[in-house]
Amino acid sequence: MITSDLSNIWGKIVLNDLLSMEPRLAEAHSTLSEGTGAGHEFTGWLTLPSTLSQDEIDAIKACAAAIRTHSKALVVVGIGGSYLGARAVIDLLRGSSHNELDEMEVYFAGNHLSTRSWNQLMKQLDGKDWSINIISKSGGTTEPAVAARLLRVALEEKYGVEGARERIVCTTDAKKGILHDMAQKMDYQTFPIPGDVGGRYSVLTAVGLLPLAVAGVDIDALLDGAREAQQKLNAERSFNNPAWQYAAARNLLYEQGKRVEILCSYEPDFSYFGRWWQQLFGESEGKDHKGLFPTYLEYSADLHSMGQLVQEGERSMFETLVRFDPPADEVIIGSDEANMDQLNFLAGKSLSFVQSHASAAVTDAHRDGGVPVLTLDCGPLNEHSVGALLYFFELACGISAYVLGVNPFNQPGVEAYKKNMYHLLGKPGY
Amino acid sequence: MITSDLSNIWGKIVLNDLLSMEPRLAEAHSTLSEGTGAGHEFTGWLTLPSTLSQDEIDAIKACAAAIRTHSKALVVVGIGGSYLGARAVIDLLRGSSHNELDEMEVYFAGNHLSTRSWNQLMKQLDGKDWSINIISKSGGTTEPAVAARLLRVALEEKYGVEGARERIVCTTDAKKGILHDMAQKMDYQTFPIPGDVGGRYSVLTAVGLLPLAVAGVDIDALLDGAREAQQKLNAERSFNNPAWQYAAARNLLYEQGKRVEILCSYEPDFSYFGRWWQQLFGESEGKDHKGLFPTYLEYSADLHSMGQLVQEGERSMFETLVRFDPPADEVIIGSDEANMDQLNFLAGKSLSFVQSHASAAVTDAHRDGGVPVLTLDCGPLNEHSVGALLYFFELACGISAYVLGVNPFNQPGVEAYKKNMYHLLGKPGY
Repeated sequence: MITSDLSNIWGKIVLNDLLSMEPRLAEAHSTLSEGTGAGHEFTGWLTLPSTLSQDEIDAIKACAAAIRTHSKALVVVGIGGSYLGARAVIDLLRGSSHNELDEMEVYFAGNHLSTRSWNQLMKQLDGKDWSINIISKSGGTTEPAVAARLLRVALEEKYGVEGARERIVCTTDAKKGILHDMAQKMDYQTFPIPGDVGGRYSVLTAVGLLPLAVAGVDIDALLDGAREAQQKLNAERSFNNPAWQYAAARNLLYEQGKRVEILCSYEPDFSYFGRWWQQLFGESEGKDHKGLFPTYLEYSADLHSMGQLVQEGERSMFETLVRFDPPADEVIIGSDEANMDQLNFLAGKSLSFVQSHASAAVTDAHRDGGVPVLTLDCGPLNEHSVGALLYFFELACGISAYVLGVNPFNQPGVEAYKKNMYHLLGKPGY
Repeated sequence: MITSDLSNIWGKIVLNDLLSMEPRLAEAHSTLSEGTGAGHEFTGWLTLPSTLSQDEIDAIKACAAAIRTHSKALVVVGIGGSYLGARAVIDLLRGSSHNELDEMEVYFAGNHLSTRSWNQLMKQLDGKDWSINIISKSGGTTEPAVAARLLRVALEEKYGVEGARERIVCTTDAKKGILHDMAQKMDYQTFPIPGDVGGRYSVLTAVGLLPLAVAGVDIDALLDGAREAQQKLNAERSFNNPAWQYAAARNLLYEQGKRVEILCSYEPDFSYFGRWWQQLFGESEGKDHKGLFPTYLEYSADLHSMGQLVQEGERSMFETLVRFDPPADEVIIGSDEANMDQLNFLAGKSLSFVQSHASAAVTDAHRDGGVPVLTLDCGPLNEHSVGALLYFFELACGISAYVLGVNPFNQPGVEAYKKNMYHLLGKPGY
């Protein structure tokens, strides 16, 4: 399970500050689990790992197996919470080069309006058998709706209307909405997005699980990890709970003037997980003119770009470092008789050894420079630990946002530009 | 050429505020061009586009042609400014899927210490002919030095010492340093990094130009664009200069309490350009406990993740939007008789049409919500405009940092963790 290490946050914060947060954390956690707070109608994700039915899991796996049989590529059509979770987990577990190295390719579309990116996708699909998974609760969001129309036409041209029907899977509301109605009329296979689960909390529904299963991720193990986290993190109502520690520390740091939270990892392929986390916390807490600005840095690359600012810029940030155990297949730095590169002091050492020492050195330097560092240790990098980490962040976010005093589950500010846009585009009714 | 649009920054800022900045801008620009300010020994980039010799450009092109002849893949070994510029321009001009779609593949290594990412690269190179370009001013930075040793050994195992020699190109200091000395001893081909150009300002030297030429970027056109920007932006010493407008606006916004600058673009493949820009401004200004926190968001994707926070979170940010003209090859949204997806209001419209209206709607909504928006229009997306944009940001950064009152060209804070790390790793002398 995940453990948190707060040993590098002290200074301006003292232990008593943290302990004094206990009543607020207990109340926030109860508000969440008892469903008595703002947005309580969207807390279905709290029990999702233990309540998702075996029938649905089996149906997802069967659909994924069928796609892998008849297609070389799956195009996932979705934006925001409808793609970030799946993309985060695929990159982290299969590697960001999965499309070059795996048998099955998974692409993401409907998350932009770029002609250039669209044309690239068309070239990537050229000559291959492919399918699409349209993911949208309503079906009315512009970017995925446009991509879905273009891709549906392309599929029908390639395979005919009947052939295309077997290659279109819709993940959408179980009862209503544009995409639901279209899927019914066209007899497309569908998977439900539960009504009580919002987009940024939906990775452990079919929204995330179907693309993950297609990409070769073991979704049983992922759900096992999430289920263990669900049980342990909800049973422990004290500071022994790492989700409490994380929620408490980030709120304290915010109250004491920190404004930017930098999530960081030494795995380059964690980058999309960083973006998933950024949506989770940014969209849940960034309201009422409040909330930390969440951002992600990729270490050690970004130590050589943003390291200067982290060390000596404004003292308004803290770091949350996510660590995994080193992998079993080590890469050893060899010895070199001539030692022209003066690197023999590392001869016989592994890349992971250098990484762990770099990480320790960075934490010390940042802490000493006025940047508190929270550390989350996740154990070995695999489906189980990633499932647990997803649930950990979801729960910590719900608790943290209630401590902050905002509704974690709405996103009223997203409407402003949509109204402007629909008006400019001449959408009926605007 | 680039034009800037300040029409969405007014409110807290009024025109007189901007105009009152004129003496500070004039002084900062003079300090820069006359070489009288802090860090003046690193301002060689100011004239680089016009002073890079035709001999060197020809040598770079010849080397790139040779690599393209004997190799299917080039591995660029470098970190920070030694890779971000090349990667930014390749992604933007060749597309982020260039390795899947182009004949020649370009990979980036030596910018992490991850065993998993290393193992992926080895699989990507498996069975292909490849070469490496080691980029480091000193040769002493851990990440690229480790990757260079591992890759050199792999090349020598595959091709023998003599064969490997033809496949190793070093871009390094012209006179001294570990990598310089090794290249001399081993008789590797070398290209110089000018002593008066720092890493984050080095994209228009061989550091950027060789990988770009290998990737199929027209470096003559890139340099043409940069040269035009060099001439025009240095000749115009008034508010007609878009670099002055940008430097003035961001400093004013900072002085009035803004803390985060969000660079944004509607091209997903602009993402690494955002990271190049982040290093340029973050490392130049983030010191003495001062400086904006620069970060990048990919629109419209991130409108559906961070849009809520931008619209209604803390009012401490502003946006800098980089726009390019729509491409010539339009994608048209077709009509659909059944209109099941209710998208016929867009029938006959192009993706670019929708994008430009979305962009206008977002700017209005953010401005009205308290987020000033600066816009930079770059014309068509091609080598010429990207060369101009690189120089524009470099010059604007130098001016902006002098206005802020810091040395734009040092990075003293990067040393702190390195000293800790070398000590922990047992490097001789630490």
